[in-house]
Amino acid sequence: MLIVKKFGGSSVANAERIKHVAQTIVNSYNEGNRVVVVLSAQGDTTDELIEKANEINPNASKREMDMLLATGEQQSVALMAMAIQALDVPVISLNAFQCKISSTSNYSNARIKDIATERILNELDNKKIVIITGFQGVNRSLDVTTLGRGGSDTSAVALAAKLEADICEIYTDVDGVYTGDPRVIKGAKKLNEITYDEMLELASLGAKVLHNRSVELAKKYNVNLVVRSSMTDAEGTIVKEETKVEKMLVNGVAVDKDVARISLVGVKNEPGVAFKLFSVLSKEKISVDIIIQSIGRDDKKDISFTTTREDLAQTLSLLDQNKERLGFDSVSYNDRVAKVSVVGAGMATNPGVAAKMFEATFDAGINVNMISTSEIKISILVDEKDADRAGNAIHDKFIGSGVEI
Amino acid sequence: MLIVKKFGGSSVANAERIKHVAQTIVNSYNEGNRVVVVLSAQGDTTDELIEKANEINPNASKREMDMLLATGEQQSVALMAMAIQALDVPVISLNAFQCKISSTSNYSNARIKDIATERILNELDNKKIVIITGFQGVNRSLDVTTLGRGGSDTSAVALAAKLEADICEIYTDVDGVYTGDPRVIKGAKKLNEITYDEMLELASLGAKVLHNRSVELAKKYNVNLVVRSSMTDAEGTIVKEETKVEKMLVNGVAVDKDVARISLVGVKNEPGVAFKLFSVLSKEKISVDIIIQSIGRDDKKDISFTTTREDLAQTLSLLDQNKERLGFDSVSYNDRVAKVSVVGAGMATNPGVAAKMFEATFDAGINVNMISTSEIKISILVDEKDADRAGNAIHDKFIGSGVEI
Repeated sequence: MLIVKKFGGSSVANAERIKHVAQTIVNSYNEGNRVVVVLSAQGDTTDELIEKANEINPNASKREMDMLLATGEQQSVALMAMAIQALDVPVISLNAFQCKISSTSNYSNARIKDIATERILNELDNKKIVIITGFQGVNRSLDVTTLGRGGSDTSAVALAAKLEADICEIYTDVDGVYTGDPRVIKGAKKLNEITYDEMLELASLGAKVLHNRSVELAKKYNVNLVVRSSMTDAEGTIVKEETKVEKMLVNGVAVDKDVARISLVGVKNEPGVAFKLFSVLSKEKISVDIIIQSIGRDDKKDISFTTTREDLAQTLSLLDQNKERLGFDSVSYNDRVAKVSVVGAGMATNPGVAAKMFEATFDAGINVNMISTSEIKISILVDEKDADRAGNAIHDKFIGSGVEI
Repeated sequence: MLIVKKFGGSSVANAERIKHVAQTIVNSYNEGNRVVVVLSAQGDTTDELIEKANEINPNASKREMDMLLATGEQQSVALMAMAIQALDVPVISLNAFQCKISSTSNYSNARIKDIATERILNELDNKKIVIITGFQGVNRSLDVTTLGRGGSDTSAVALAAKLEADICEIYTDVDGVYTGDPRVIKGAKKLNEITYDEMLELASLGAKVLHNRSVELAKKYNVNLVVRSSMTDAEGTIVKEETKVEKMLVNGVAVDKDVARISLVGVKNEPGVAFKLFSVLSKEKISVDIIIQSIGRDDKKDISFTTTREDLAQTLSLLDQNKERLGFDSVSYNDRVAKVSVVGAGMATNPGVAAKMFEATFDAGINVNMISTSEIKISILVDEKDADRAGNAIHDKFIGSGVEI
């Protein structure tokens, strides 16, 4: 099998962990696999480099920041290669120049355009383990770029796609994808399989196991992803196009407390208001999540939406500045709300899900503020104080509680 | 003017020094010069990386060590570019991949083969200051190499040669080349000019201002080198083919205390013994400096030579192992000796130098153990306790003492 393995910064944070991961890699190699490894920078290296840069120039160009930050991954791959050499297995480390990982020129947030696999395949043919820098690319002018948040996951999936790997294993500090955050949802269970779409919905709901872009890429090229722990041998969760197991109605419950609700009251009941409102916000890069518009009564209607709490102040100030143009009577807001969502591919064909969800919240005596639905997701907005209880009630209803994992 | 400036690790050790050097660079740019800068890794970065590597694998391959160490210079150039951006001057940092600094494959001690100047010249044409990683190259397989001790000096001189720079300024923590080590020779004076050959002899005598390889390269391509301080505006020392000033008889006095003398007593007076002896030593990478062979009396002669003190024990053990093959009666040694040398291009045509030197040591009551001469150098071996006194006596004789610098 050709396997791509990706390890994050905490998995390679110090000599001891590097040696542990090296052994994991060598075990897989010794089972007869061709192994490609993608690494992030060690532990806090990236933050330390950013601090160094800020001390010199807080407004440095992104081009130079990328040149600086890319050294973190290069150090990781060289050190990992050394650890594998200590186990007497042939190995080579490669950076983005050497693999020709070509990217767009969008410094600090570049996209991978292509990867020349010749060198990698040659090294694999020479029976070497190949260790590659994640998070980075090289643009058309041969300048170093970085891929933004979750970039190393994306590097791993892109490599797996290009190399037509049998599997792409993403090692993290959790041992898989759960039906809910185990710190909040008491009955949370590990999933053996999940579809790309479900994973995408879960990720966007705050289950920070995999970055969205890497899942999108995996879906596009049909890469078999596995999320598993770098600390234990537990089997992990497979992310793929179709799951073999019968579809569960709900695959996960997510609780997101970084939510603020804003309502425009008394908006004129005429076309184009919503367009004007959300283009004002998007120009300032404010992400809007749930949007609800009341059915107009007389000539007025209300529009409510949610943002992150960080964006609340700026949003309110933008609304104030544009009050005349947008035409509304008043604004109300609440930054003590939370979003509870259920995700499951089985949902689209099962009209009973919403009803079951509301039954759960009703039984728990929880008031629901807003509701939003998609093909595979239902989200409700509740008071922050009710959020964990709502999450558990819904999880119990759909998935059951206290089951052994 | 096109100027190449090289700054060592201590000049860029922290944010404050980087900002200071950035200002020096920008001043030169603002005078209308085209400026290319070559940097080493910050302060102790290289040592810290080596320590990290040793913790993981003390026998790591040189290829992976070079991959690791090369990140140090990449961090320096990015940080320096940021510091220059803070001064509102256009700038770009480039690594060995981007400048196509091609080298041999001899990891940890590679030689520069060529530099593709197109990118550098383009950036200069765009009115940018160009900051380039010293100490590193890329071999034919696109693997990272490092250039060994003094490598950044070599990078700077190679760039100056390829770019046909008007001058190559090597910034160090001293303000030029002196007629002797100011810590030992009280009357040591700064030289305004010195020839490549004299610099080479001085460097090999332990005046560690410039690495030999960079001086050889400067001589080969006739690069005007200047050694100057990164802390002061003092003028520094120009190293060039021919000095304009009338040749001084002696340009410098060097005292080297890292010397051990070894004598083989009672060697058979037949051909091939010296060859056998020194090939045994060179196989084990033991450098031999001064060699003296007594004129044979009867069928026996003596051979004496010097090594560094570090190599003494291994040398004695090698002699013991090969005693039968080499054929000698006994070995004596003294590791409390020192070498005092005078260097000057004027020496070759002036037979009085040796006499004057011995006059100086005789006047000071110092016993001379061994003597070795070359075209532009005379070295003597004295007891370690006499070394500084001998150095001062000789310096006073040739160059004079206590003169204002």
